[in-house]
Amino acid sequence: MIPIISVVGKSGSGKTKFLTKLVPELKKRGYKVAVIKHDVHSRIDLPNKDTWQISKAGAKPVLIAGPKKMAVLRDLDKEKNLDDLAEYCSDVDLILTEGYKKENKPKIEVYSQGSLLSAENELLAVVSAKRINCSVPQFRFKEMKKVVELIEKKYLLGKKSKKDVKLIVNGQKIPLNFFVKGFISSTIVGMIKSLKRLPKKFGEVELKIYS
Amino acid sequence: MIPIISVVGKSGSGKTKFLTKLVPELKKRGYKVAVIKHDVHSRIDLPNKDTWQISKAGAKPVLIAGPKKMAVLRDLDKEKNLDDLAEYCSDVDLILTEGYKKENKPKIEVYSQGSLLSAENELLAVVSAKRINCSVPQFRFKEMKKVVELIEKKYLLGKKSKKDVKLIVNGQKIPLNFFVKGFISSTIVGMIKSLKRLPKKFGEVELKIYS
Repeated sequence: MIPIISVVGKSGSGKTKFLTKLVPELKKRGYKVAVIKHDVHSRIDLPNKDTWQISKAGAKPVLIAGPKKMAVLRDLDKEKNLDDLAEYCSDVDLILTEGYKKENKPKIEVYSQGSLLSAENELLAVVSAKRINCSVPQFRFKEMKKVVELIEKKYLLGKKSKKDVKLIVNGQKIPLNFFVKGFISSTIVGMIKSLKRLPKKFGEVELKIYS
Repeated sequence: MIPIISVVGKSGSGKTKFLTKLVPELKKRGYKVAVIKHDVHSRIDLPNKDTWQISKAGAKPVLIAGPKKMAVLRDLDKEKNLDDLAEYCSDVDLILTEGYKKENKPKIEVYSQGSLLSAENELLAVVSAKRINCSVPQFRFKEMKKVVELIEKKYLLGKKSKKDVKLIVNGQKIPLNFFVKGFISSTIVGMIKSLKRLPKKFGEVELKIYS
């Protein structure tokens, strides 16, 4: 399970500014980070005028793909929650979200004024230009290293590749997304559990098939 | 395998115009259509200024998700070919591409002037305002129904759900993407093939698990 931390805060509090400082600091330490931005008003559209016309004509999904980047635009029947969206972020160490204050994930609140949006027991930290009256660890925007250390200690250190599935074929690692990893893992573990003479719990399964 | 047809043509020939007419005509007949647009110069970026900043800060992938739409922006190590991109288009009947003239897919060329881009043996049809000298079926922009009939006859009719995997849990169909369908199918078929007293070839496998 990839840890998910939500960056919340009132409109204009500086959530994006915070994320653009936090992500490079995490990358410096070798972590791969995905960001999920909540777009409450569904203003999403691909920038290219042609693509927009094609989407409007009824093509679902629409992809734009080039040598270095690709974008996929999908319509949704109903809004996806963060755990579902996380399936699009395989192969990262941490998922940060901008928004999603109503979901049940640990939160960092970027504070500007008035009262806090979040209950203190949901909060991992508060980022604020001035000290406020609360029992949660507080940081300034320039203390990004300290924020990263807190995230590292709670969610990243010692947790790398703890739960994971690796598929190596002819010596080459095959990339698997989150869903496929879970699927393979539960299939194989399910099969193995039906075998006799096995310990009831096992932390690691290695399966080699030569064909 | 979902059929892929590439719409090719010189710059300014009207490929997008053609697609915006073709897609609704296919949808009228109940087909689900995805479009993959080739973006040779990787000018892709998500429209939202915040999102762009977050992507530039190093978050990969970046998602924007709302109640009705979602977009995923990914960086690529190397360009993906159409068969790889098709994995993002599960649950459609047909994939149309704009561009990708170098890939080995059947093509419809939108003709404007000069010589044809494609060899005649690659072409399913030519769409042109005036008749040109070639042995491939030719259509005008207003003859979209005839184009759809040709595509239907060659790629869609009688081919619906021929090769497919359906997973129904507690009576509810679980959506599976192209990759997962292939994975389940080859796993189960592989298991079954090792059983005795089975016909050597079988077209349909039904597996029910009650737990």
